[in-house]
Amino acid sequence: MDNDCSALKQDIIENFGTPCAVIDLEKVERNIATAQQRCDAAGVANRPHIKTHKSPILAQLQIDAGARGITCQKLGEAEVMANAGISDIIIATNLLGAARSGKLASLQKRLPLKVCADNKVSLAEYSKAASAAERVLDVLIECDTGQLRAGVETPEEAFMLAQIIKGDPMLRFAGLLFYPSLDGWPRTQQFYDDISVKLASIGLEASIVSTGGTPNFTNLGKLQQATEHRAGTCIFNDRMMVAAGVATLEDCAYQVYSSVVSRANENRGILDAGSKTLTSDSGGLNGFGHIVEHPAATIHKFAEEHGFLDLSNCNNKPAVGDIVRVIPNHVCVSVNMFDQLVAVRDGKISHVIPVAARGCLV
Amino acid sequence: MDNDCSALKQDIIENFGTPCAVIDLEKVERNIATAQQRCDAAGVANRPHIKTHKSPILAQLQIDAGARGITCQKLGEAEVMANAGISDIIIATNLLGAARSGKLASLQKRLPLKVCADNKVSLAEYSKAASAAERVLDVLIECDTGQLRAGVETPEEAFMLAQIIKGDPMLRFAGLLFYPSLDGWPRTQQFYDDISVKLASIGLEASIVSTGGTPNFTNLGKLQQATEHRAGTCIFNDRMMVAAGVATLEDCAYQVYSSVVSRANENRGILDAGSKTLTSDSGGLNGFGHIVEHPAATIHKFAEEHGFLDLSNCNNKPAVGDIVRVIPNHVCVSVNMFDQLVAVRDGKISHVIPVAARGCLV
Repeated sequence: MDNDCSALKQDIIENFGTPCAVIDLEKVERNIATAQQRCDAAGVANRPHIKTHKSPILAQLQIDAGARGITCQKLGEAEVMANAGISDIIIATNLLGAARSGKLASLQKRLPLKVCADNKVSLAEYSKAASAAERVLDVLIECDTGQLRAGVETPEEAFMLAQIIKGDPMLRFAGLLFYPSLDGWPRTQQFYDDISVKLASIGLEASIVSTGGTPNFTNLGKLQQATEHRAGTCIFNDRMMVAAGVATLEDCAYQVYSSVVSRANENRGILDAGSKTLTSDSGGLNGFGHIVEHPAATIHKFAEEHGFLDLSNCNNKPAVGDIVRVIPNHVCVSVNMFDQLVAVRDGKISHVIPVAARGCLV
Repeated sequence: MDNDCSALKQDIIENFGTPCAVIDLEKVERNIATAQQRCDAAGVANRPHIKTHKSPILAQLQIDAGARGITCQKLGEAEVMANAGISDIIIATNLLGAARSGKLASLQKRLPLKVCADNKVSLAEYSKAASAAERVLDVLIECDTGQLRAGVETPEEAFMLAQIIKGDPMLRFAGLLFYPSLDGWPRTQQFYDDISVKLASIGLEASIVSTGGTPNFTNLGKLQQATEHRAGTCIFNDRMMVAAGVATLEDCAYQVYSSVVSRANENRGILDAGSKTLTSDSGGLNGFGHIVEHPAATIHKFAEEHGFLDLSNCNNKPAVGDIVRVIPNHVCVSVNMFDQLVAVRDGKISHVIPVAARGCLV
């Protein structure tokens, strides 16, 4: 697909126009298999994060390849997945909006969820939701080991929450959720060792010990008691993953087909893909995407529907009307801008996959 | 609404959860009236850009207040507006993807559109689309006067395109589209003067001379022959417009209601609104939004569903479970993340407005 694909480009623009989000099914399947193999080799279950693709069809491919279940970030995403028949779901965040709007109770009534908390307020809301659902709710405690994201910072706080869970008949302690930084695994092991002793003192044990992140695949095994890993980006990969050294451009399964719509002068060009297509997530990289046909071109700035090209380093400059393929810096947020992905196999359009959980913000 | 609104917050979270996009109808109406008054005072027609709200309901409010018609950036947006009965539409960009997929011809068959071009390839595609639609297509020539966005850079190039339009029986020259920078109005006047002489030499005249941008309201009148102005952001305003001095926080009609979902330590907090809600558009500002209840707090970083708060400068720090109102840096891209806006009047939920043209990327 990275060679000449003018016939495919023609098919894409005639059937869908540009910009168009396209995934290469062979690469998707290979990426899914690779993630599963990495988890298998480390002896942990695979629980992919669906925030990247937001599609029950792709989640089912991951499960068919061996994944234990899935991870969601929003209750609404879990609803979409549950509607498609997927039942083993961790929602990896404090769910206050979903709890207080009744959405958590509604879904928990239909199937037993696993949710996460790093504070007492979340636990109180979870208890109410579980009561309303008339079903005990499994809760993991989210622990921060240096990333400064969500999660309690100390084993003492984690233990305090575990005691509340243990004392609440509507909640059940299900385990611990970590997101170690690349060099934070020793600290995570220490946190685990400390909290597990405390948990044992009140008769609790973490049946699920979850770690996360595509760049952390190479660290699997460094937390000895980890039971599962949740990674999202690896199904598609992106320019950030290439920059991080965990994927090659050849592993990037998602490309935005975009038309060159303006060439005001020798060194300027404009794509019909802007911040409402590729998003302003830079991921700390220079430029906002890799252009397969013109790797020396830089998308240096966005308007909402335009990507501004600096072509000064290109010998072979694109013409107006050319269709180019862009690998975004951060694929998860770009997928989130589209209602559908066009799936391609053997250089031909195969079918359309709805981004069914897009816009599930609660 | 900027005073205590705990009852409204409770209604929002119980009915919709968080994050939730909320608009204050009184402010929206006032902003619409102000934009119309500014155009009226300058003697130019008002043609608001609907990219900000993407709602035919809000576009109709703008028309009812006196707008001549609307501006869209995508053919798909124009389709949604046309379906709602709005018929006077300029699409302010080169439309290659929409032309080559047949979408432009389909809509042009239903109603006469006005489109824009800055190059010959676009004109050739427009001619084909107009032939397929069996209806002559009105074309404006987009001219760049220093912003380095889309648009021809010289009157000579504009004239060359005008000649092509004049020579094509399926195209009709409709005028000139400018987007002057704040200090680029003298240069725009010069460009206009140069091209209008050339146009007159072949019997053409620009019946539409369009300028753009909310920050340019104060410059209306500086291009003497301007016939209309297109501004988007002014219907809601945002932190960028406040920073630019063209709106106050009180004029910001759009707020994202968000729950504080984590408070890992004294100076850290996390909102349930991240880059998939507020977007990574910084607009060159420090931090990613103004928190009405905690103006000294900074949203310093995003995960996809989390906004990371630095609370070190706050005396009054939010607690987990608090609902806060966030005015985003760039409202157009935040609206684009939601499927609906919750409209509020007199501090009470009034109705829900679909973001009907969201995701219309082609």
